[in-house]
Amino acid sequence: MAGTDRSRAVSVDAALAPVIILVRPQLGENIGTAARAMLNCGLSELRLVSPRDGWPDAKAHAAASGADSVIDQAKLYADLPAAVADLQRVIACTARPRDMVHRLIAPEKAAAELRAWAARGERSGVMFGPERSGLTNEDLGMAEAILTIPLNPAYASLNLAQAVLLVGYEFSRSHFEAPAEQMVNNELTRPATKEELTGLFEHLERELDESGFLRIKEKRPSMVRNIRSALQRAQMTEQEVRTFHGIIKELSQKRKPPA
Amino acid sequence: MAGTDRSRAVSVDAALAPVIILVRPQLGENIGTAARAMLNCGLSELRLVSPRDGWPDAKAHAAASGADSVIDQAKLYADLPAAVADLQRVIACTARPRDMVHRLIAPEKAAAELRAWAARGERSGVMFGPERSGLTNEDLGMAEAILTIPLNPAYASLNLAQAVLLVGYEFSRSHFEAPAEQMVNNELTRPATKEELTGLFEHLERELDESGFLRIKEKRPSMVRNIRSALQRAQMTEQEVRTFHGIIKELSQKRKPPA
Repeated sequence: MAGTDRSRAVSVDAALAPVIILVRPQLGENIGTAARAMLNCGLSELRLVSPRDGWPDAKAHAAASGADSVIDQAKLYADLPAAVADLQRVIACTARPRDMVHRLIAPEKAAAELRAWAARGERSGVMFGPERSGLTNEDLGMAEAILTIPLNPAYASLNLAQAVLLVGYEFSRSHFEAPAEQMVNNELTRPATKEELTGLFEHLERELDESGFLRIKEKRPSMVRNIRSALQRAQMTEQEVRTFHGIIKELSQKRKPPA
Repeated sequence: MAGTDRSRAVSVDAALAPVIILVRPQLGENIGTAARAMLNCGLSELRLVSPRDGWPDAKAHAAASGADSVIDQAKLYADLPAAVADLQRVIACTARPRDMVHRLIAPEKAAAELRAWAARGERSGVMFGPERSGLTNEDLGMAEAILTIPLNPAYASLNLAQAVLLVGYEFSRSHFEAPAEQMVNNELTRPATKEELTGLFEHLERELDESGFLRIKEKRPSMVRNIRSALQRAQMTEQEVRTFHGIIKELSQKRKPPA
């Protein structure tokens, strides 16, 4: 619901999208909400490395409402090497490691690498650690890069599903993103032509001249320019121009004494 | 916890960061988790327009653990015009409007506009509608642009806190983001010099010559080149070069018959 776009039907190619690997997740509910976050971003392949409460997990299913397909097809592995065995690239999503030299990448860079690997036909995955403790240095030994999500250092606590959402969002934005800016529902009408706008400006200025609003001659050019500029920025449609003609007419008639 | 960076102490200037406005939110729990998402992104000013269950709300406080400051300072308004009265710019986060002409912007563009407004000292806000129904067209009349989050059109359902998180993340990334790529914990050691690397290559090649691995004369140059290239890509530290000298020595000794 909140602020999402259902109007575009583009999907992520499952064979190219990264696998999401949850390493020793503790709470079934988090597995379920992570599955939802995956599906929000068009990701469908979930792998689980020895979840604490076993698998299948009723709580995971309950929390995944609507993303059941992701949960139903999730694969279970005994250890991380087995879970990533067929992958060619693995990124670890974790806090900055403390005592290990590693390549650290920002989410945007990670998404670009994932897309570049996919374009070359390379299978990739992103792994997330247990809720409480995160990935171990041994786990990190399976990854070629570490992705750390940039957040408020004073309050960086994110739950598992939110971390999956942010990583999936970065990966999938190129698939789902609309143009940076567009006018919507323009099919209801069309942008006004400059001639139509000029007609509106002239109508308004005629009325303002008549009312005396523009009576100070030396100020008139700049006032007209400023009014036109403000109305230009509104990027009116043809329909709106007609509406404003009506408004000007209506207001002018109220001002004029009845004939 | 998962994949966040606690090491950088940069914060968003509260007077410049956008206000988050929750319009007629239904569940206190969502207000609390939205407050957490705000704080994750360094946003601190929350405004509530007639929350369904009144205010203060114990459930909101309970769900905001760690982000109590945001909840404690949240301001309550009877209607949207009052909540945005002092703001100069308002973006509405909602699904693409169906029967209204409006300017639709992508999250990145919205974040850029919010930052540009802040840089000019203009106060801005981002508003989110009720969980079930979203913002009304009347609400949208208060916004200069509509932000729609690009997600899988087949599964675009996001909860309120997740929507706030994604918008806050886009806004705050320029504050918290590390360089696109870096080597971390290099202070434990330092990148190897090319001379050190060359010393390693020569050590390895000497042993490989001795073992007969490089015996086919016409293939030797390309084999050496390929091995060197692979090891160059590892971007070894000085410490790692020493480790690999040890490895080569160790393996060679095993191969050599005892003297």
